[in-house]
Amino acid sequence: MIQTDICIVGAGPVGLFAVFEAGLLKMRCHLIDVLPQVGGQLSEIYPHKPIYDIPGYPTIKAQELIDNQMLQIAPFQPTFSLGERVEHLEKQADGTYIITGSDGTAIHCKVVVIAGGLGCFEPRKPEIVNLSLFEKSHVHYMVKDPERFRDRSIVIAGGGDSALDWTVFLADVAEHVTLVHRSDSFRGAPDSAEKVYQLAQQGKINLLLSHNLMALEGGATLEQIRLNNKAKEEIVVPAHDFIPLYGLSPKLGPIADWGLAIDKNAIAVDTFDYSTNIERIYAIGDINTYPGKLKLILSGYHEAALMCQSAFKYVYPEQKLSFKYTTVNGVNAF
Amino acid sequence: MIQTDICIVGAGPVGLFAVFEAGLLKMRCHLIDVLPQVGGQLSEIYPHKPIYDIPGYPTIKAQELIDNQMLQIAPFQPTFSLGERVEHLEKQADGTYIITGSDGTAIHCKVVVIAGGLGCFEPRKPEIVNLSLFEKSHVHYMVKDPERFRDRSIVIAGGGDSALDWTVFLADVAEHVTLVHRSDSFRGAPDSAEKVYQLAQQGKINLLLSHNLMALEGGATLEQIRLNNKAKEEIVVPAHDFIPLYGLSPKLGPIADWGLAIDKNAIAVDTFDYSTNIERIYAIGDINTYPGKLKLILSGYHEAALMCQSAFKYVYPEQKLSFKYTTVNGVNAF
Repeated sequence: MIQTDICIVGAGPVGLFAVFEAGLLKMRCHLIDVLPQVGGQLSEIYPHKPIYDIPGYPTIKAQELIDNQMLQIAPFQPTFSLGERVEHLEKQADGTYIITGSDGTAIHCKVVVIAGGLGCFEPRKPEIVNLSLFEKSHVHYMVKDPERFRDRSIVIAGGGDSALDWTVFLADVAEHVTLVHRSDSFRGAPDSAEKVYQLAQQGKINLLLSHNLMALEGGATLEQIRLNNKAKEEIVVPAHDFIPLYGLSPKLGPIADWGLAIDKNAIAVDTFDYSTNIERIYAIGDINTYPGKLKLILSGYHEAALMCQSAFKYVYPEQKLSFKYTTVNGVNAF
Repeated sequence: MIQTDICIVGAGPVGLFAVFEAGLLKMRCHLIDVLPQVGGQLSEIYPHKPIYDIPGYPTIKAQELIDNQMLQIAPFQPTFSLGERVEHLEKQADGTYIITGSDGTAIHCKVVVIAGGLGCFEPRKPEIVNLSLFEKSHVHYMVKDPERFRDRSIVIAGGGDSALDWTVFLADVAEHVTLVHRSDSFRGAPDSAEKVYQLAQQGKINLLLSHNLMALEGGATLEQIRLNNKAKEEIVVPAHDFIPLYGLSPKLGPIADWGLAIDKNAIAVDTFDYSTNIERIYAIGDINTYPGKLKLILSGYHEAALMCQSAFKYVYPEQKLSFKYTTVNGVNAF
């Protein structure tokens, strides 16, 4: 049985930073993640993609950020169970928890921190005939590698930022881009919507507002997509690939059975310390929600810091917590 | 008259990052700071000092962080009034504000963001005879340059983290370090206190618990400090320099007259959007307080992001705000 102070479910950027903040307070962490490597979506989906909104980095590649975070927490010697899903949570008589993973790893901890990020979500699927027929081959719920679509005809569906941003981006990559949206206005950022309108006016993309998806059609591969408008007039758009970007819905797996309060498809937390409704269980990063929540990595960092101050009382019930700056002496390991 | 969307009072790391988050929402910023350069305390007090708790940077020098942040916000072309103190705030009939600086600069803005940091605070002074006599020459309310104390005899006073951390640090620099604390236990981090006890046991520092400061004594320079214990027994400690580290108290200057709610010596804000009690005025970074507040730069970054979402409605009252990720298209300037 692994003995630790804090068991962090999810080894993405926010889970990793929690190790740093915990370490400053001399709390040890064990991380468990279903992915075979640390870094969460950053390492899994877009390791080579630049990120622009990490404070202090005009731009940094996703994997580089994770590598730097691993260096930053190295003094605190976190331990990991990678490639293993959390299966069971069992409360002990003394208030501590035993978490069991899918490979049978047992972790005894005083505090549980859920930092599962978007890895705990799954894409919302569109209602369209023949979806399952092409789902494995030509339906893409996320754009992992834009080059996959070079010189191909693609249909993007959705009205939020992902749909807008990828339409703008892929307009320069794909041979032909059609953006389909069931409404006549976008939910996404006004300036992104503006860019999409401009591309449509310039004839660089095909914009179909107030259209509904009907069916994917083809043989061995996807060939075209059938749509109709509000007047029920049908049209057919040639397509090699279909990219429905309707956002995500939660897929909490066994965590869904823990009795956590859920709000807006995420785990509801208190902004005082990012605690859930269950004592000793916290949720930080994209998996949580609270009034004003933004799904930003930098917000997860802040949540991790405040969470650790609160978790301290379960790890060191006898000690008074004193807030500690690293400015003077730097980082002191155990 | 300078016309801008957001006037940010304070050009430290948090004020600078607010420019980035505002820029993503197409809001322009003007920054005013009493210091002659951007960067706040980081550039003013410890530019060459490594910082350890910026997420993603195992270590970074304070000035380097500021330089990187300036690069990060360059696309948004913020404007600056440096070396100028905010003097007046005048609410206009339409709800906007005109801020006037000490050099007469007038800034017309829709939103005011106070990001004054610790620059809006002043050190708490100890009660000790002859303080004013040596205050300019041998009393140091903060350690700007540790080398200043090389091979000198110093007395540090205080029981919090600053006192503990600088005692540990300067034990290797100064010839002789005495730490004086009026109580018999420390408020600072347990592990820092532990280190101080160890240094005392090893004879590397002189630790005087439950002692009170009485008088600074000397001639042209400080020579010794007189103390007494609870039994009123007096002792004298030789000292070239005196470093009282009793924390900070607010020095809001003209901002104190704006009618802002103050709590725990800081500006009280709502964690939903870091708004103050006055409409269109926000406070972010070390100058604000709320339940769970930590004075960390990384928390200021988060506060800046959430603040901008809320400020948007004053800058673009007609537009619906849509949250925007930079992941796909990067940073687009105006």
